[in-house]
Amino acid sequence: MRIAFIGAGGMGAPMARNLLRAGHAVSVYNRTPAKAAALSADGGQLASSPSEAARHAQVVITMLPNDDAVRQAVLGAAMDAMDSGAIHMCCGTISVECSKELAQAHEAVGQGYIACPVLGRPEAAAAAKLWMIAAGPPNSVQFCRPLMEALGRGITVIGEQPWQANIVKIGANFVIASMLETLGEAFALMRKADISVTGFLEIVNSLFNSPVYANYGKLIADEKFEPAGFRLKLGLKDVNLALAAGAQHAVPLPLASLLRDHYLQAMAQGEADLDWAAVARVAARNAGLGGNTRS
Amino acid sequence: MRIAFIGAGGMGAPMARNLLRAGHAVSVYNRTPAKAAALSADGGQLASSPSEAARHAQVVITMLPNDDAVRQAVLGAAMDAMDSGAIHMCCGTISVECSKELAQAHEAVGQGYIACPVLGRPEAAAAAKLWMIAAGPPNSVQFCRPLMEALGRGITVIGEQPWQANIVKIGANFVIASMLETLGEAFALMRKADISVTGFLEIVNSLFNSPVYANYGKLIADEKFEPAGFRLKLGLKDVNLALAAGAQHAVPLPLASLLRDHYLQAMAQGEADLDWAAVARVAARNAGLGGNTRS
Amino acid sequence: MRIAFIGAGGMGAPMARNLLRAGHAVSVYNRTPAKAAALSADGGQLASSPSEAARHAQVVITMLPNDDAVRQAVLGAAMDAMDSGAIHMCCGTISVECSKELAQAHEAVGQGYIACPVLGRPEAAAAAKLWMIAAGPPNSVQFCRPLMEALGRGITVIGEQPWQANIVKIGANFVIASMLETLGEAFALMRKADISVTGFLEIVNSLFNSPVYANYGKLIADEKFEPAGFRLKLGLKDVNLALAAGAQHAVPLPLASLLRDHYLQAMAQGEADLDWAAVARVAARNAGLGGNTRS
Amino acid sequence: MRIAFIGAGGMGAPMARNLLRAGHAVSVYNRTPAKAAALSADGGQLASSPSEAARHAQVVITMLPNDDAVRQAVLGAAMDAMDSGAIHMCCGTISVECSKELAQAHEAVGQGYIACPVLGRPEAAAAAKLWMIAAGPPNSVQFCRPLMEALGRGITVIGEQPWQANIVKIGANFVIASMLETLGEAFALMRKADISVTGFLEIVNSLFNSPVYANYGKLIADEKFEPAGFRLKLGLKDVNLALAAGAQHAVPLPLASLLRDHYLQAMAQGEADLDWAAVARVAARNAGLGGNTRS
Repeated sequence: MRIAFIGAGGMGAPMARNLLRAGHAVSVYNRTPAKAAALSADGGQLASSPSEAARHAQVVITMLPNDDAVRQAVLGAAMDAMDSGAIHMCCGTISVECSKELAQAHEAVGQGYIACPVLGRPEAAAAAKLWMIAAGPPNSVQFCRPLMEALGRGITVIGEQPWQANIVKIGANFVIASMLETLGEAFALMRKADISVTGFLEIVNSLFNSPVYANYGKLIADEKFEPAGFRLKLGLKDVNLALAAGAQHAVPLPLASLLRDHYLQAMAQGEADLDWAAVARVAARNAGLGGNTRS
Repeated sequence: MRIAFIGAGGMGAPMARNLLRAGHAVSVYNRTPAKAAALSADGGQLASSPSEAARHAQVVITMLPNDDAVRQAVLGAAMDAMDSGAIHMCCGTISVECSKELAQAHEAVGQGYIACPVLGRPEAAAAAKLWMIAAGPPNSVQFCRPLMEALGRGITVIGEQPWQANIVKIGANFVIASMLETLGEAFALMRKADISVTGFLEIVNSLFNSPVYANYGKLIADEKFEPAGFRLKLGLKDVNLALAAGAQHAVPLPLASLLRDHYLQAMAQGEADLDWAAVARVAARNAGLGGNTRS
Repeated sequence: MRIAFIGAGGMGAPMARNLLRAGHAVSVYNRTPAKAAALSADGGQLASSPSEAARHAQVVITMLPNDDAVRQAVLGAAMDAMDSGAIHMCCGTISVECSKELAQAHEAVGQGYIACPVLGRPEAAAAAKLWMIAAGPPNSVQFCRPLMEALGRGITVIGEQPWQANIVKIGANFVIASMLETLGEAFALMRKADISVTGFLEIVNSLFNSPVYANYGKLIADEKFEPAGFRLKLGLKDVNLALAAGAQHAVPLPLASLLRDHYLQAMAQGEADLDWAAVARVAARNAGLGGNTRS
Repeated sequence: MRIAFIGAGGMGAPMARNLLRAGHAVSVYNRTPAKAAALSADGGQLASSPSEAARHAQVVITMLPNDDAVRQAVLGAAMDAMDSGAIHMCCGTISVECSKELAQAHEAVGQGYIACPVLGRPEAAAAAKLWMIAAGPPNSVQFCRPLMEALGRGITVIGEQPWQANIVKIGANFVIASMLETLGEAFALMRKADISVTGFLEIVNSLFNSPVYANYGKLIADEKFEPAGFRLKLGLKDVNLALAAGAQHAVPLPLASLLRDHYLQAMAQGEADLDWAAVARVAARNAGLGGNTRS
């Protein structure tokens, strides 16, 4: 297939590489060209604008960090260069509102649009082990399925409205963020009670038996928040998306409110670019603990 | 070994049965005798008081629901009947403070004391798949190890102070309770956005790949809160233990505070005896949802 | 002075009347004409659009409920009809962002702009006892001072940037909203402990000696939430403005987060148009109390 | 009247002095004798124990900081020395539970007991401007009324059960603590937005017109938290009393939970002995602000 890949950063670059490996022709655009450059060694075609990337593509994949980035790259840009009948497969975590807006815009000019946010961090993207959350018109989802298979270890189709995949992704990220806060508070308690955090983590792992707890638990126990797999400021963005979805449907989410307050507290300390697991530091600091852990 | 087992309820009865199967001699006491009666068919000796059960036992196991129950059964009761040199292995989830008090009391009369709270629900107890969190003097822990092996699928020894196992167990229960709140809020959002909760749960399961999420997620999706595997009022007790430990060490636990408020809200609705996963109903009700779910 | 008054609703109508009484010529526009009609008996000139009202006015006052309403009435509307040199005095509670946007828009065409949000409910507006929070270029503030004097019992000039008055107003409303939540929780406790809420309120009044506590306390004790002096949905809007200002400056406002959650809970119960003091019902319901109070 | 006054600290000493000035015979006990010594110049009789103070007194007033202090001074101490028919008037802020316990203990030996917690800080105590919250058997309340009149500017009788006055006092302190948190958050926002906090406080004062807002607002604006009028650790104690009362009646108090978390955060920073208004520092620190304010 002829694919355009817009947004080849920490997550997008390994995804684009997997599409190349699966035999697709991929035209790549990234705002910072250096990050995309390495893909030319894998056969990627480097484009100098979203429009150039999108021209003649059957599927335009965007993997961009927020609503504004998607709007800027697509509306009045890639969209104008896309063929009628081409499909925009939007993989970033964006708001329900923005997803509805994109669906309308593409439909108005006879283009397809599906949402396909992904679960997983850069390592999972590289190993083609993402989980793909897809929603949109069945024909379009069907057409893009080979791409999803090249990117992930599994696919869940949520419904026929693209925004449904977005709210599910927002909900999933909320579940992870809550886990980070939980571990942050629990570890702060253990540290002040002079309990080994690795001992406590062993119990948590024996209990949940989940790689997500094991991986994030280790990051927090080791206070290893750089380099960021997923930046704290993006974590805040996602919590805000959850709160916005909650507001739209009149659903109080007090735990999301707590997460938002703690992410803001971390932002106020200049920690926007640490991994979002660094929210654990907020709980530690609020307990009077300094930066170092014991194990 | 000659064992006394005090507290043969929903968790304790299957634990006592596993000890009998492992070939130990077990004298059983339960406040409501009917619950313990079935154990006589497995070879258990029924006792009419904690003291009677404890007499001549090498290890006295208590599996009781809270501080008061343990104090009542042990201090001035089972303790007076225990031989010098016998060991009290305390398996219930009790406070740090109560655990320190018991350690002191037993030491004063030359008896041993270890804390060994367990992770797992009644099904895990029946299958001898609990996880044992042990702490206490190494000799005593070593002596009780065969009993732990008969009860669980794994053992973590946290330290030489019994209360250390208690705070770890309190922390572990806090991690589970946070997960329940998280799922409750996320499911409320999905339901009001008209997303299939089973679809959402599939995503959560693909993400965490953890039996704890899968089991509790299903309970919440199905709104199946009876019979209770672990009663909501005990969940509240455990959250209060976490807050008490936090207060003792000056560790704010805002997520535990939120859990406490929601458990209290459920108590105010008369839901004390539902499974603690019913905290999910609080989030649903606060969003204006009634009792029924869609899938 | 020749004044245009846009937004003559529950607050705006009595304000416009006070300007007429002070001898000013006032052209009035309201989206629902019926509400403004009564002002013609007081000498007001009824206009059929914001632009018609604004033509030839020296000062255009807007008293509109939110950002969107102000943008719609002013940008590309009243603004285009205003003389160069005329001043827009914006009295509604709007966001910092919207206030900055308006300042820029007016400046670009040589018009003046000051923010002058007001403190007080409809009764205070009628009695010309509002408190005026003004900010903007000193000349413009000076020019509008006679109008402020006709509307209020006092004026505080906060600074030379109009948005400064807006954030102060947002902060003041947050302080009131927190008081409402506080009384709601305290009254719920008293009611369930079978304490007379009027007795408790007497203590609160003897303590604070503040008309704000006395008035709102009585509304809550009597559960008299209709007709609304200030609608709950506008209270939610203002709490959201506080949270937005907090996010912009990286200031966690956990109490505002709690207020937002409780206002959302009330919205989910269909209480958007009750007085914002009805947030007290949320605390009562969460404690298992029905709608009726005892005194 | 013959009065015993137990607990002559920052609040108690000026109260005892006002009783002396009103012509009563007062025997004074304080754990730290130095604090009580100055009262002998006013005619007070210094006692070396609670029992010595209580002997032959018609009314034994306790002004002690918490449950434990009252239990220690009264049960098995002052109580044993009191005449049958003498009345214990308990003025400190204690728990509902402790108040019920004292009522029972005194009744069992034919002594009277009323609760009479007070509103006001040391300055108000010195000026005899406390507000007295009384509850207990009408005869006993009537008998003590002249003492209340010598201590305060007003009296509210809440009911015939002493604990009713205690829960009302606990509720009143919760209302003040909420105000402190509110001002702390609002001031943090103003400071980071570069708004004059004194300007903001002027607005708050024009709005509430309450000495409590004016006084505490100034303390917070000036960051003047020493010497403490009411220590932060006692503020935490009182918030815990509110939460305990809420738990007893199944009333979630999420705002009290937030207060508790912030007081704990201050405790973790070693601020236990600052004025409880120093909770405002928590909001400031969480927003990344250092200790100094601007005005």
